[in-house]
This record gives sequence, structure tokens and C-alpha cells, in this order.
Amino acid sequence: MQKIRLGMVGGGQGAFIGAVHRAAAGLDGQYDLVAGAFSRNPENNLATANQLCISEDRAYSSWEALIEGELKLPEEQRVQAIAVVTPNHLHVPVTKAALEAGFNVFCEKPLAINLEEAQSLESVLADSGALLGLAHTYIGYPMVWQARHLVATGELGTIRKVYVEYPQGWLSNNLEADDNKQASWRTDPAQSGGSGCMGDIGTHAFNMAEFVTGSKVTHLCADLHTHIPGRRLDDDGAAFLKFDNNASGVLIASQVAAGEENGLKIRVYGDKGGLEWFQMRPDSLIVRSLDKPMTILRGGQGQPGLCEEALKRCRIPVGHPEGYLEAMGNLYTLFAQAIRSGQQGAADGVPGLAEGLRGMAFIATMLESQNSDQKWTALTL
Amino acid sequence: MQKIRLGMVGGGQGAFIGAVHRAAAGLDGQYDLVAGAFSRNPENNLATANQLCISEDRAYSSWEALIEGELKLPEEQRVQAIAVVTPNHLHVPVTKAALEAGFNVFCEKPLAINLEEAQSLESVLADSGALLGLAHTYIGYPMVWQARHLVATGELGTIRKVYVEYPQGWLSNNLEADDNKQASWRTDPAQSGGSGCMGDIGTHAFNMAEFVTGSKVTHLCADLHTHIPGRRLDDDGAAFLKFDNNASGVLIASQVAAGEENGLKIRVYGDKGGLEWFQMRPDSLIVRSLDKPMTILRGGQGQPGLCEEALKRCRIPVGHPEGYLEAMGNLYTLFAQAIRSGQQGAADGVPGLAEGLRGMAFIATMLESQNSDQKWTALTL
Amino acid sequence: MQKIRLGMVGGGQGAFIGAVHRAAAGLDGQYDLVAGAFSRNPENNLATANQLCISEDRAYSSWEALIEGELKLPEEQRVQAIAVVTPNHLHVPVTKAALEAGFNVFCEKPLAINLEEAQSLESVLADSGALLGLAHTYIGYPMVWQARHLVATGELGTIRKVYVEYPQGWLSNNLEADDNKQASWRTDPAQSGGSGCMGDIGTHAFNMAEFVTGSKVTHLCADLHTHIPGRRLDDDGAAFLKFDNNASGVLIASQVAAGEENGLKIRVYGDKGGLEWFQMRPDSLIVRSLDKPMTILRGGQGQPGLCEEALKRCRIPVGHPEGYLEAMGNLYTLFAQAIRSGQQGAADGVPGLAEGLRGMAFIATMLESQNSDQKWTALTL
Amino acid sequence: MQKIRLGMVGGGQGAFIGAVHRAAAGLDGQYDLVAGAFSRNPENNLATANQLCISEDRAYSSWEALIEGELKLPEEQRVQAIAVVTPNHLHVPVTKAALEAGFNVFCEKPLAINLEEAQSLESVLADSGALLGLAHTYIGYPMVWQARHLVATGELGTIRKVYVEYPQGWLSNNLEADDNKQASWRTDPAQSGGSGCMGDIGTHAFNMAEFVTGSKVTHLCADLHTHIPGRRLDDDGAAFLKFDNNASGVLIASQVAAGEENGLKIRVYGDKGGLEWFQMRPDSLIVRSLDKPMTILRGGQGQPGLCEEALKRCRIPVGHPEGYLEAMGNLYTLFAQAIRSGQQGAADGVPGLAEGLRGMAFIATMLESQNSDQKWTALTL
Repeated sequence: MQKIRLGMVGGGQGAFIGAVHRAAAGLDGQYDLVAGAFSRNPENNLATANQLCISEDRAYSSWEALIEGELKLPEEQRVQAIAVVTPNHLHVPVTKAALEAGFNVFCEKPLAINLEEAQSLESVLADSGALLGLAHTYIGYPMVWQARHLVATGELGTIRKVYVEYPQGWLSNNLEADDNKQASWRTDPAQSGGSGCMGDIGTHAFNMAEFVTGSKVTHLCADLHTHIPGRRLDDDGAAFLKFDNNASGVLIASQVAAGEENGLKIRVYGDKGGLEWFQMRPDSLIVRSLDKPMTILRGGQGQPGLCEEALKRCRIPVGHPEGYLEAMGNLYTLFAQAIRSGQQGAADGVPGLAEGLRGMAFIATMLESQNSDQKWTALTL
Repeated sequence: MQKIRLGMVGGGQGAFIGAVHRAAAGLDGQYDLVAGAFSRNPENNLATANQLCISEDRAYSSWEALIEGELKLPEEQRVQAIAVVTPNHLHVPVTKAALEAGFNVFCEKPLAINLEEAQSLESVLADSGALLGLAHTYIGYPMVWQARHLVATGELGTIRKVYVEYPQGWLSNNLEADDNKQASWRTDPAQSGGSGCMGDIGTHAFNMAEFVTGSKVTHLCADLHTHIPGRRLDDDGAAFLKFDNNASGVLIASQVAAGEENGLKIRVYGDKGGLEWFQMRPDSLIVRSLDKPMTILRGGQGQPGLCEEALKRCRIPVGHPEGYLEAMGNLYTLFAQAIRSGQQGAADGVPGLAEGLRGMAFIATMLESQNSDQKWTALTL
Repeated sequence: MQKIRLGMVGGGQGAFIGAVHRAAAGLDGQYDLVAGAFSRNPENNLATANQLCISEDRAYSSWEALIEGELKLPEEQRVQAIAVVTPNHLHVPVTKAALEAGFNVFCEKPLAINLEEAQSLESVLADSGALLGLAHTYIGYPMVWQARHLVATGELGTIRKVYVEYPQGWLSNNLEADDNKQASWRTDPAQSGGSGCMGDIGTHAFNMAEFVTGSKVTHLCADLHTHIPGRRLDDDGAAFLKFDNNASGVLIASQVAAGEENGLKIRVYGDKGGLEWFQMRPDSLIVRSLDKPMTILRGGQGQPGLCEEALKRCRIPVGHPEGYLEAMGNLYTLFAQAIRSGQQGAADGVPGLAEGLRGMAFIATMLESQNSDQKWTALTL
Repeated sequence: MQKIRLGMVGGGQGAFIGAVHRAAAGLDGQYDLVAGAFSRNPENNLATANQLCISEDRAYSSWEALIEGELKLPEEQRVQAIAVVTPNHLHVPVTKAALEAGFNVFCEKPLAINLEEAQSLESVLADSGALLGLAHTYIGYPMVWQARHLVATGELGTIRKVYVEYPQGWLSNNLEADDNKQASWRTDPAQSGGSGCMGDIGTHAFNMAEFVTGSKVTHLCADLHTHIPGRRLDDDGAAFLKFDNNASGVLIASQVAAGEENGLKIRVYGDKGGLEWFQMRPDSLIVRSLDKPMTILRGGQGQPGLCEEALKRCRIPVGHPEGYLEAMGNLYTLFAQAIRSGQQGAADGVPGLAEGLRGMAFIATMLESQNSDQKWTALTL
């Protein structure tokens, strides 16, 4: 068996998510990172390549150069997949070009700057014969699959209520004024899109709600806020949700919940019981019931009582914590398996175009609702 | 010093909250329960009285008889305060008559069936020279006062965001069809008022939000639900909140969050930090900060770092858990102190008419918003 | 029904445990505190009595005067039970005299200064026809009975291992040099007995281990320490335990675990599963199993799955925390029921002489082991 | 920069710890696994190699063949380090031969079958010019370094007490009778050494205690148990510890604590405060103080308040959990840095021979104490 040859666009020194992708890709030994266009800054680009043991001739000065350069290589040397870890506004341009060139693409979320841009990928992907994966990393956690399994198998009964929340505090201050790289592009509509907080983390919460329940949001009511004078995008907000199965929900996302870290949590209640999963203790899944004691399902290799999809995302026995990098590692490893087995379009078990479009529709609807006096706005896609 | 002589209306065998009031009143040895009209059912009434070591002649057949009978006793034997622990629809009739007869009243919440009825108490209380206390029990917890203190002293900076939630699961089934006493009256508009879940526990969440922040809600947007076919009142809902200091909030309350117990939680965030208090671990107050490690303040007698109002509500040293009965005990003990010191209208440290009116206005506005297509409805009082 | 008339010896202003006993006795309305010898200091004694609404003529100047004075009162006024909440060295003298005078006694633990003194109560109690209760308060918690029930019914299989620990930190400094009343007598052999930490809290841990497992310790190996120069008693220690059912255990107790509060915890493991109970979250009982997910049993009135003995110690529904005062309140209320029903010697569900003797034998054996170079010392009684 | 070329001995399909090492080595992209002798079973060996994208000619049939084969390769192809992930009895033979051949070695713990065997490595390592790392994985966690830092900088004052515990439950049944591979060799003296539980996990607890406190154990008192009839090694035990700074401690380790997962926990108390770290929530460090509120230090890249050694072991921002693989990844990455920078003997920040010898001395002393009636046995090295 050969490792998958991987290229990366973005992720130079000073970036956050690029290093996460690299660690995730390295975890299961499925990838060789052999090429990159890490930064427009040549110095940064070369330094990053060197640190990553990538030869200088495959440290490309731009993503365009990377695609062009790799295409010139013999197929058995050429990268087979490209990870796109740039700010949001480059997701679609790079992805589109890469797909058109026949490369599989694993892209950071959100998929695009807006819904229309995202939709432009539909035909490109279909025509490419390649795969598109989307880094909804939290879907890589085993116990999130177990949660989905409990809902799908009726363990909780008919679903009535969904609470999903994602409090962070790191944008409580005007970091963008201090040239904080992460803050700057995330609060810039040109790089980030029409929404800040909802685009960055609200989409994760939305994706989690639809994934775990297996239902679709049909209407929402948004309340968005911006707390820093001069900040151009929302940094906080909430939404009421209506689902296609008549369940209702509340979604909270904030980047000004001062002191909060990365508190994605989902709670789902049916007429028989409820579940709770919290990203900061990801190996536990609390299951409540109307007539039985609360149980805590625990993730781990070979752990009895877990569904197959959860088990296959666990590397080590229970009690040896696996975390965020392992979750993304699961997406990468499944993406590698999909490449090896010749899947097209979407990789089994990996969020892709469909989830990306839902996310962009969520953002668009949130913005529409925020501008409306009416309580409810339909989410259509 | 003499104990305060206490009478009780409601709280016969099979009731829930009456026994809670009695334990709370007994905790600090400030009261003698000497009279009661516990139940319209004479057998229940007498059995309850006997069990409580109350003489048969002061086990009255009705609340009217209690007031009349006690007035005939010499002042030094007569009850000095009456606890009203009936279903909601009797709160105002009993309270009004008791105040008019000159008795101090400690009443269960919500104060009334609706706002207008509650407002009818305003002149009665003012004319009575007596005290009216309201059992917003959660305000009796020491660490809730500590939370309010942190906000009031600017520890968190300017308040931006409030999340308050109160999930319960006990009404997930159609208990009222099974003649469950607690469920039956709470889901009956005639006994409970126009709202079920919001009247029963939403008011606690609302009261907590206004108490801890020291701010008033000015507008809200409600989303109420009823999940049991035939149930006549909401059993679940949420609201967006706007506060008079420009903070915003999200309030969640549900009685169909299957498997949840009594999960009142409040989180408040300012531009410097945040706090979190959870009723099911009431002696801890989590304090987060933008630039310091998370701290956990712990309640307990003599505990360093607690404000005076928190300390005086702690009986025993840290690590010896005090709970719900102690919280209500604090209200009762402060109410006794107010009686002894001749306070009128409201007892220091005890919720009363003002909080009761806010609660009823909250319920009225939630119902108005629920019936409106407009996003925002003003809460006026 | 009449309330039980209670007298108290000790518990004047500045004391700790007396107020705890009074709150516990008041909680369920079963007692009237009508007499006391609260302090040798006449001013403190009278002030305490006044604060407790006790008439001056029953505020006795000494415990001898209390017994003598109450005996002169007509039987229907005389106290029926006496709570002994003095430092340890007075436990036996007061208890003995009270029993001999026919009063029921509810005494703080440890029962005596040493084992011999405790054994002198055996014949006195047998001859008295009265009851002796001992404030092993933690045995009053509902979930401790549930834990015992799980062991007794074989849910955990054959018991192999017991870990019991009780870390506190409040004696980390030389408080006795600062005239801290609680610290002073506890570190004085004349008032406290031959052991400090093991007598004060080690006995609780030991009692918990024997209670939950239903087994007896037969041998132990002690390692005691004193950390403050000049302190005359141990303030920290540990023991290996052997039980009569071949289980083994480790007991830890410390009063110099700086920053710890009151962390009594017990874990018991059998060949099928294990349990864990922690005094600072007393309404939860963690149950682990070799082949099922971890469950958390939760205490509360009417809670499904709890044994009868646990249920009858819960006052309110799950999610409304009951704590330390409620635990001791359970002992008091069961003691009242035993008085009413004419039990003699030991009150059902309340620790008494037998547990007191075991505790004193534990202390004696710990001291013997500490002075020995041999690994194991037999605990005989 | 070039990746370090890595070989592996052990870790074929069905093994546990080999895959952990591979994931850890892959995490930061510092290694290329290019050779292996994974299993004596040729089929397993080749299948493992293939799955790991290792060419067939470097899938050696034995560790001897691996060393011999690699030595024949040109230096720029030859492996630079060998990971030894066999059962215990092969640790020293493989390590010795690899060191003698000039390879750096990263070995699983415990270092040897017994102390004498371990000591035989001393001169070999000194003569080799190579590095020896030992997989005391838990020392790779950032917050363990923070804990050590708090002790070293006097934050807790003079250390008095250490509690370290490591409960597991997985050997509660007679798994070795069912041919469970992990259980079989661990309970076989010929493969595991003279101790089971203490060798396997007691050494981790011991290493943690010495690492965090910076002190050495001088005496101990052991109580070991074997619970399965026919099992030849201890599966459970405890020890009292004396440290060279006069602190005392209690060490608990069990593999029959039914239902427990992998609960390594350390608590350290000085005269000013205490700390607590729990492997199953590794990114939190609880810090208690005599006069300040409890704080919870949280690990994460760039997290304020963390010491340099902790920070450099964090890859991602706080709230994105890093776990066990990341901890071992830190050891591997530091080992790579040591190789690159030409360190000899021990790699900075990575446990090595010294820690291995201490661990073997601990095991030897535990066995000696277990066979003695005397309370205390000296640990000499």
C-alpha cells in the first residue's frame, strides 16, 4: 500500500488550522505531505516547507502554481489530494480549480463566501470525478456518531427538542485592531463572507444539529449582535429552529462569551429520553431516560455498547483520551479510504458538498432573518 | 426571643411544595407552625395537622376559616405570618384576605393567575402595613448573591450576554391523564393561569436573569410549544431577551426535556469575564476571565472571598453541601427577621411584590409574543 | 402527635456542630428544643438560649444542672432526649449520666476518648431502657444506603477492594496557636483523645467502609503523621485494611491536604462492578460495571430504581439538592421515630453504641500499629 | 529538513501499544516509519508492513534481522531510531543490541524484567553515543509539566503529601484464560517480570509522583494482591511512600477495580496549597490554595499563565482537547529534536534510562516489601 500524496494551500507559519490538518493527516500514517503553497509571503512559504520536510521545488509560490506544477509531474508523483486551509474567500476559487484539474479536495469550512458561490461547485464536482471533503471536524468524533445512532434507532423516541450551543470568548476584545491574524480575516467581510460568528462557528452548531437528529431545519428566527464598535460582522447570536420532523430547537453561538473556550454542546430530547454531548469532554455521551438511570456511554476501541460507526473512529481503549486532532484525523483517514476505493463526489463518513450547501443556506437565512421584523424565515435549499 | 407563629394554607398530604416550606421554616428554629388549612378534604387536613403536631382546633377547614379563627385568638397566640402554598389560582385571593386581616404573607410563586390580578395586590399591601414575601427560592442560594455581587461590582465588566435555562423532563408524558396531582393543576389554565411551563419555571429563569444582572428585560421574542396532545398550556419554550443596559439574552425553559431533573443554570458574560451558576451544584460559582485562569468560588460559612450577602446565607463550612431547603430556609429566616424588625411591604433579601409583578409581566409578554408574527414584543410594567 | 422535647449540652456561640444538630433536628418538625447547657460561660449560655427562643430557666449552667433540673420537671414537660455536642472528652460523662437518668441520648462522634471509656457505656445503656444515637452523619445520606444496598444485593459481585478517603485542609496551619476554638480542642489529647485526624475524620471513613460493605476490618497497617511543629496529635494518615470477607482496602484521612474541603469519598469494587460516592456531590452514586455502561443513580423522592432505605431518606424530588443538614436530619428524624415507638438501645437506621465501639477500636488499633514496626496489627473487639 | 527514519520492533496486528507509537510518531510529521520487525508471525509481519506503507524488503522477520539489515544500508537510508514495543522481556535484549549498533532507541516501559537487567544497559548506553527514550507517556502531557512547575517554583509551599492512584478494571476477569493477548503476556512472569500490576501501571504512578514533586522515594510499605485463582502476578496493590524531602505519600494501583478505565490521578499538597491532575481530563490542572479560590489551569497553545515547558507541549488552542496520543507525540517529537541536535544518552524532556532504573528499583522494592513482615523497606539505587 502507498501513502496518499497530499498538497496544502494555506497554513503557513502563524496560521492556526493548517497545522491542525497536517497533524490530523499524519495521525494514521495515510498521507505524505509532499507539496504546498503555504503563504503568499515567500519567506514564510519556504520556511514552512522546510519545517515540514518538503522539498523546495514543491513549495509553490501560489495555489495556481501548485496546481500547475503538480499537473506537470508524472501521475505517480503528483499529489492526489489538496487540503485547502485558507481564509474563507479562497475556498471556492482554489477548490474549483483543483477539482477541475482532477485533484481530490479536502476544504476547510465554511465552504464559501455565500450560498451562490457554493452552488457554483455543484456541477464542477459532478464533472470532476473527484472527491470533495469539508472539515466539519466535530463530525469526526466517535460519540457524535453514537449520538446520531441513538436518535436513528429510536432510543430517544420521537425527537421534540434540540439545544445546540457554541460559546467562545476569544473575540471579546478588539483583536483585529491589534493585527491578530485569526481575528482580522474572520471579521473582514471580504475574506470571511457576510457573517462572522455564524459563519465561523454557528455553521458547526447547525451542522451538528442536523447531523445528530437526521432532520433538516425548515425555518429559523435569528437574533445577531456585534459587540465591538467598528466590527463589521456579527460576533454573537442565537436562533430558534424548526425542523422538518416538527421538532424545535435553540441554537446559540458567540465569540464574545468572555472566558469560554470552545464549548460546542448538543442536547437532543425525544419523548423517551435525551442525550448530551460536549466537545470539551468528547469521549462521553450522556444518555438520559424517562424511566432508567442516567448512563454515560464512553468512547474507546472495542468498547461494548457502541455502534459500528462510533467504534471505527476510536483508536485506543477507553480512558486514553482522544481529542480534536483525532476527530479530524478520522475525516482524513476516511477521505484516504475513499480515494483508495475510487469513490466520487462525497467520501463515506466525511462531510462534503451537501453539508457545505446546507451551511451556506443557514448563514444566508440567518442574515435574512436578522434583517426582518417577522419572527420566522424559511430556510430553503 | 420568641419564635414566629406561622399558619399555612395548602400543603396537605400529597402536595409537594408545602412540605418544602415547612422544612425551610423549621431549619433555623425561627418559626412555630401552629395553624393550618392544609386541604379541603377534612380527613387529609386533620391527618396533616396531626402529623405536624398541630392541635386539632387550629386545623381549619378552609383558608377563610383560618383567617377568621386566628383573628379571634389573642394577639400573642395568633399566627403572625401565613404561608400560601396552594395552586396558583388561590395565591391572590388568600394573600389579599390575609394581608387585609393584617397577617404577613409568604406566598408561593407565581404570584397570581395573571398580571392584572397581581396588580390588585399593590394597594392592599401598601395599606396593610404587613409584609409580602414570594418563594423565588433560588434567590435564597448564597452563590446567587455572589453572582449578583460580581456583576454589581464590575468584576465582569459591562454585561453583554445572558444565557438562562431551566430544563426539566417530568411532564414528558401525559401525567395529567393519570391523575398526577402536580401535573393536573399545573396544566389546567383555571388553576395555573395562561402559561404552563413559563409560569411554573420560566418565571424562575426570568427572575434569576434580572436578579443576577440587576437589569430589566425590555423586549422579548417567544417561541412556545405544547407537546402532549390535549395539553392546554405550553410545556416548553424559549425567548430572546433584550435588557435595558443593551445586553441581550436567551432564556430556555422546558418540562419535556426528557430525563432532565431541575437544571436551572445562568451564565452571564461581560467584556471582562463571565460567570456560571448551576442549581444542581449550588455551592459552586464558576468565574471566567479574559486574562486569568478560571476560578471556582465555593460557598460556606466564613469562606474567604465571598461577599457579605453570600456569607450570611451559609450555615456551615465549605464542603458540607447546603441545598434547596437551605435556600428556601434563607428566605424564611430573613422574612422572620423582617417581621421582628417591623419592616413593611417587602422583607430585606426576600423577593416580594415587585418581583411577582415582573414575573407576571414576563408571562403576559411571552403569551403576547407567542401570538404575534412580529419578532419583538415590548415588556412593559 | 407531640414534638419530642430536646435538650442540648454544648453548642454555645462559637461552636460549630451544635448549630448543625439544631438545624437537623428542626428540619422535619419532630423536635422542640426546650432546654440546654450550651456553655460554661454564663453569658454565652444565656445569649445562646435567648437566640434559640429557649426560656431562661431552662438554660442551665452545666450539664449536671440540666439533668438535675429536667428530672424535677413533670414528665410531660421534661426533655425526652439530650443532644451531646461537646468536645470528645465530655461525651461519655454526659452520656452516661443522661442515660442513667433515663434520657435518650444523641451524641456526637467519636463516642469517647478511648475504647475502654466507650466500653463503660455498654452496661449503662443496657440498663437504661433508653436509646443512644451517634452522629455518624454521613450514614444519613440516602445514596450511602443505596450503595450499601448494591453491595448487599450482590450487584457488584464479591467485594475485592475498598478505597475510602477523607481529605481536608483546614489544619494546614497552626490554627491552635491562634486560639481557633475548633482547632484547639481537636489537637489537645485531653479533650480529643489519643488521635487527632483519625479520631475526628478517620473514624467517619472507617465507619463508611464498614457500613457500605457490610464487612468488618480485621487487620490494619497505619502510617500517621503530624505536620505542625508542636502539634500533639496526628493530623494526617493512611491505613491498609483487611476485611473479614478477604477484601482489602486503603483508607486515607488528612487535615493538612491544603485547599481540600470535606472530601469524604468511598469506592468499592467487586468482581462484577464498582461504585463511587462522594460527599460533596451526595445525591449521585456512580455505578460501574464490567459489561454495561456506567450509570449514575440519583437521589430524590420517588426516584425510580432506589431501594426503600434510600427513598425514605429523600424529602424532595431529584434535582433539588439535599445536603449535609438533611443527612443529619435523617438521623434525628429516625431517632424521633424510635423514641415514639419505644425502641431501646439502638434506633433503627441510626448509628449507635456498636458503631461507636468499632470507631474507638479503630482509633486504638491505628495508634498501636503506628507504634509498631510490624506491618499488620489485628483490630479486635 | 529531513524526517527521522524510524524502525519498529513489535506492534504487529493485534498488539495495542505499537499503533499508539506509530500515531504518536506521525502526529507532528517528524518521522518516516520505513522499517519494522512487527511480528514473529511472517503473515502478520507482512500484512502490518503493507498496511503501514512499508516496503516488503524492510519488513524484517526478526529484530535481529532488522538491526543487521539496516546496518547494511547506506547511512542516509538506514533508520535513525528504533521503537521497541514488544512485551517486557524483550525490551533489554533489543535495546541493548540496537544501542550497540548505534541506533537511537525509544522503548516501551518498564525498561526491563528486573533491576539488574536494566542496570546492564548503563554502560551500553554510555558507550553508544546514542539516545535512549522511555515511553512514560503521561510525562508527555503539558499539564503534568505545569504541575511540576508549580511544585518547583514553590507555589504550593513545602510539599507534605502525595496521593497517586491508578485504578483500572480490565483484568477483573481471567482474560488470560481466554487467550487475550494483552492479558496473557502481562500475567506471565517470563514475559512481564516479577510484578504484574505494579510493573505495568504502578511504575507509571511512581514515575508521576517523583516527576511532579521532584523528590525521590526512599522507603515504602507495600500491600499487593492477586485476585484471580491461578494468576501468577499481582493484579492490585498499594504502597505507603516516604520521600527524601520528608513528604509522605500513598500510591494505589489496581487492574481489578471493576469498571474503572485508565484513572491515573495525582494530588500533591504543600503547606500553602495543593494540586490535582487526572489523566482522563488531562487538559485541566486543579490548583487549591489555603487562602485563594480554587483555580483550574487549562492547557492550550498560547494559554496565559502556563510555564514554557507546558506551552511547548500544546499544539492547539484551549478547548480543543488533546489527549493520550498527543502526549506520546510530545515524547516522540522531543526525541526527534534530540536526534537532530546530537544529544546523547537522554533526550531533553523525555524519560530515559534514569527513570527506567528508578521504575525497576520501585518494582524490586515493592516485591521485597510484600515478602516482609516489617513495615518499611528502603528503596535504594
